[in-house]
Amino acid sequence: MKKSLIALAVTAAAGMASAQSSVTLFGVVDATLAVGNGSVADRTQLTHSGYTSSRLGFRGTEDLGGGMAASFWLEAGFANDSGAGQATNINNQAAGGAPAGQNGGQGLTFNRRSTVSLSGGWGEVRLGRDYTPQFWGLVVFDPFGVVGVGATQTLGSIITGATSVRASNSVGYLLPGKLGGFYGQAQYYMGENLSNAGATSDDGKGMGFRLGYAAGPLNVAVAASSTDYAAGKVRQSNIGASWDFGVAKLMGHISRDKAGTVDGSGWLIGGLVPMGAGEVRLAISQYKADQAVGADPRTRKIALGYVHNLSKRTALYTTFARVRNDGGATHALNASVTAANASSSGYDFGLRHSF
Amino acid sequence: MKKSLIALAVTAAAGMASAQSSVTLFGVVDATLAVGNGSVADRTQLTHSGYTSSRLGFRGTEDLGGGMAASFWLEAGFANDSGAGQATNINNQAAGGAPAGQNGGQGLTFNRRSTVSLSGGWGEVRLGRDYTPQFWGLVVFDPFGVVGVGATQTLGSIITGATSVRASNSVGYLLPGKLGGFYGQAQYYMGENLSNAGATSDDGKGMGFRLGYAAGPLNVAVAASSTDYAAGKVRQSNIGASWDFGVAKLMGHISRDKAGTVDGSGWLIGGLVPMGAGEVRLAISQYKADQAVGADPRTRKIALGYVHNLSKRTALYTTFARVRNDGGATHALNASVTAANASSSGYDFGLRHSF
Amino acid sequence: MKKSLIALAVTAAAGMASAQSSVTLFGVVDATLAVGNGSVADRTQLTHSGYTSSRLGFRGTEDLGGGMAASFWLEAGFANDSGAGQATNINNQAAGGAPAGQNGGQGLTFNRRSTVSLSGGWGEVRLGRDYTPQFWGLVVFDPFGVVGVGATQTLGSIITGATSVRASNSVGYLLPGKLGGFYGQAQYYMGENLSNAGATSDDGKGMGFRLGYAAGPLNVAVAASSTDYAAGKVRQSNIGASWDFGVAKLMGHISRDKAGTVDGSGWLIGGLVPMGAGEVRLAISQYKADQAVGADPRTRKIALGYVHNLSKRTALYTTFARVRNDGGATHALNASVTAANASSSGYDFGLRHSF
Repeated sequence: MKKSLIALAVTAAAGMASAQSSVTLFGVVDATLAVGNGSVADRTQLTHSGYTSSRLGFRGTEDLGGGMAASFWLEAGFANDSGAGQATNINNQAAGGAPAGQNGGQGLTFNRRSTVSLSGGWGEVRLGRDYTPQFWGLVVFDPFGVVGVGATQTLGSIITGATSVRASNSVGYLLPGKLGGFYGQAQYYMGENLSNAGATSDDGKGMGFRLGYAAGPLNVAVAASSTDYAAGKVRQSNIGASWDFGVAKLMGHISRDKAGTVDGSGWLIGGLVPMGAGEVRLAISQYKADQAVGADPRTRKIALGYVHNLSKRTALYTTFARVRNDGGATHALNASVTAANASSSGYDFGLRHSF
Repeated sequence: MKKSLIALAVTAAAGMASAQSSVTLFGVVDATLAVGNGSVADRTQLTHSGYTSSRLGFRGTEDLGGGMAASFWLEAGFANDSGAGQATNINNQAAGGAPAGQNGGQGLTFNRRSTVSLSGGWGEVRLGRDYTPQFWGLVVFDPFGVVGVGATQTLGSIITGATSVRASNSVGYLLPGKLGGFYGQAQYYMGENLSNAGATSDDGKGMGFRLGYAAGPLNVAVAASSTDYAAGKVRQSNIGASWDFGVAKLMGHISRDKAGTVDGSGWLIGGLVPMGAGEVRLAISQYKADQAVGADPRTRKIALGYVHNLSKRTALYTTFARVRNDGGATHALNASVTAANASSSGYDFGLRHSF
Repeated sequence: MKKSLIALAVTAAAGMASAQSSVTLFGVVDATLAVGNGSVADRTQLTHSGYTSSRLGFRGTEDLGGGMAASFWLEAGFANDSGAGQATNINNQAAGGAPAGQNGGQGLTFNRRSTVSLSGGWGEVRLGRDYTPQFWGLVVFDPFGVVGVGATQTLGSIITGATSVRASNSVGYLLPGKLGGFYGQAQYYMGENLSNAGATSDDGKGMGFRLGYAAGPLNVAVAASSTDYAAGKVRQSNIGASWDFGVAKLMGHISRDKAGTVDGSGWLIGGLVPMGAGEVRLAISQYKADQAVGADPRTRKIALGYVHNLSKRTALYTTFARVRNDGGATHALNASVTAANASSSGYDFGLRHSF
């Protein structure tokens, strides 16, 4: 097929000319052969996002002069095994997501991020749908980035509700980059119910923050959040740190959560070990739910993986993980099914290509 | 993040080489903090499209030689507060839209425009989904462009049915640009029902036209349409004009509608006043439904706004609007709720960025 | 509208710089005025994809060195008459598609193709959603490419199930290009059910292959597949050939299918005749279902079309087709309705623009 290269014309809408700026098309297509073994049933899938979550996005920045900039970021997740899109949540509430059974009908949304920002020397104000600060606290200090069969167990079983990873209708503030190693962000998000909705008028409303310090080999951060749901308030907090020894980067974090009368606590310790063109990843993590009455379900995971970079954009990877359940927990890996207190193991083999 | 600039390769599908042409990626991300106050309940939202409707689009033109051109335009609306897409309507009928409760599952569609065109010295034939001529008649002569809390009230309460703003399955004809100031368009759209569907065989079928004259400071246009729905025929018509005095652009329009036994009538008078890098917008508008029996609901709105341009692409804006209801009308602003014959007010504060 | 041309910045995600590579934005917008006449009811539509299926896609290739390459292909189908997207199927099963009644709510998915590949001198491994080998066997040897009112009848009435055209969750292997004219591919796809699902544990699982030889004017290929569904196994096979005489390209194929106790068989003979800037397309095709009990429905189609190329990217086209039903068949063209054993005819008039 003969090709003709043509520069893309990026043009302001509404009759406006573009100022100096850039628009970036970017994405990830990550295909994963995922095997899950449980005590009740096994499963084998060609699925997606075993190493990096699959996405297609558009983002850009406009220099407004005087150190100010305006920018946008639109990022859609998708299941590249079938081409289906992924739902978002319009109001951070239980009923704000997709109806059940969308299956192959689920279209693309900018579920991963949909923001417009103003930034300057004073920091950035970001409006729209974005990751929550409390989720960043887990991602950065998990060798598996909370993705794939090896993902940390600390995004725990009691962390329910729509905003455990991302929040819609949010107003975020991020500290500027140059604060001698300190960084931080705060986020407020709304459920947008009517003021006369009584007990549910705050459903989906919450806030979170994250503060950290990174300098040389050290990175340490603390995050916390509180969200009102119709089903009750959910609180999350975590503290994590990493140290890069060069031959290996060690990291760990602990989490404390509260959902109604249930307390949750988790920990992870792990690391990344560069090996030639690749990297070994390993982690042990645990989550335990302390219930007011009855048993305390606990799940412990061990995960070991290797990523082989074919280029900076393309990698082959494999991960093995195994969970042990106690106290009635039934956590199973890669969509297998396991009985209470039984174990489950899973494997990922994949190809990740980014652009 | 290190970036590598690469020209986008725009390539003909189906083994064909591209002729001289351009493809344009464009969009708007407009975030709005919207407050609505009603006599029953208030609401505060981080929503979208308070100044310019949020969108992502792809369009292009191919020069066919001899003054002829082929072009396409695919434009998807979305809610950037959550990243959700927006539904279209497949057959201009009540049942042709999205099922209820899509919420965060609503994926992107090219609901705003999806057309392919052939054009030449004789004008343009445009096929697909597009704005209706009757809607243009309101947009152009409303200082708020029928968007945000200040939008004209003249897109009235009796204008029901799927084609009040856009129509799918349409064949449109647009006059060429150089006719000494005269411009115009006509559009025919189909509901596409089976020929033996009886009373509903024409459901969703209609047509409209718009004729205008623009020269120097003057712009004046008239538009009318008629659409058959299963629930009855809906007719819309409007006439509007604007005069640009330089220090201010005055505009106004009146509308006359008919839906079954109900007549509707509306008017707007307003203007745009440039102020340095910004613009003041103001309008008073009214819509009244004359019912065959019973009260005649009437809503009157006053709207005042200011847009501050940070650049040609980026603006901060605010709008205040207030409606007064009579005759049983319950119109409320920014998703608040107000009782019959009570008032409602709303504010928009926003950031609009286009690319 | 003043335009500013800006090269698109294609950047690796996850903090990675791009190697030498290209990303291609491509698409087709094909609008069709489609008329269908049946003995029971007629239908007229402005629809889409009468000549080439409408789509928007993103694809790219990265050179990994040593003859190796990584590539991705994301292609979304859409109905440009309304802007609606098209559903995919997540598990190759009856329940894996869209829920009924999505209508204008159906968002864009990468239903047409969603793959990531590694390729080299040894061929290509392709992961994700793709055409099935058995479908290629029909497309290549049908003058109408199984699209529009003239599409071959051999994608027959008993070919049910989600994978007759494409399969999700597939692992494909394609032979390299330079094998002295031989080409081929094999594909394995999974339904991904739990291992303890009993009778339905293999629902949606299958495989297919295609082998061919193309040299000079000759092209000949054979394809076969078998898929397990909860409703029973479906087998498809076909063999086809074409010979390019220069003044015309003749082609034909036969198909043999099996779904439970029903056998199906079809044949097509047709050709493409270049005429100046255009091309005449014609075909006769038939499909017959041999049922274990009762009548054997048979539909025979004759189709004649002309494509007029305005450029390499833009074409006007028209197609006429007529079917004759026997044995109780009720096949009707362009969404008309016809009685058992009655005829139906249809016309397409359209404009196809690719980019």
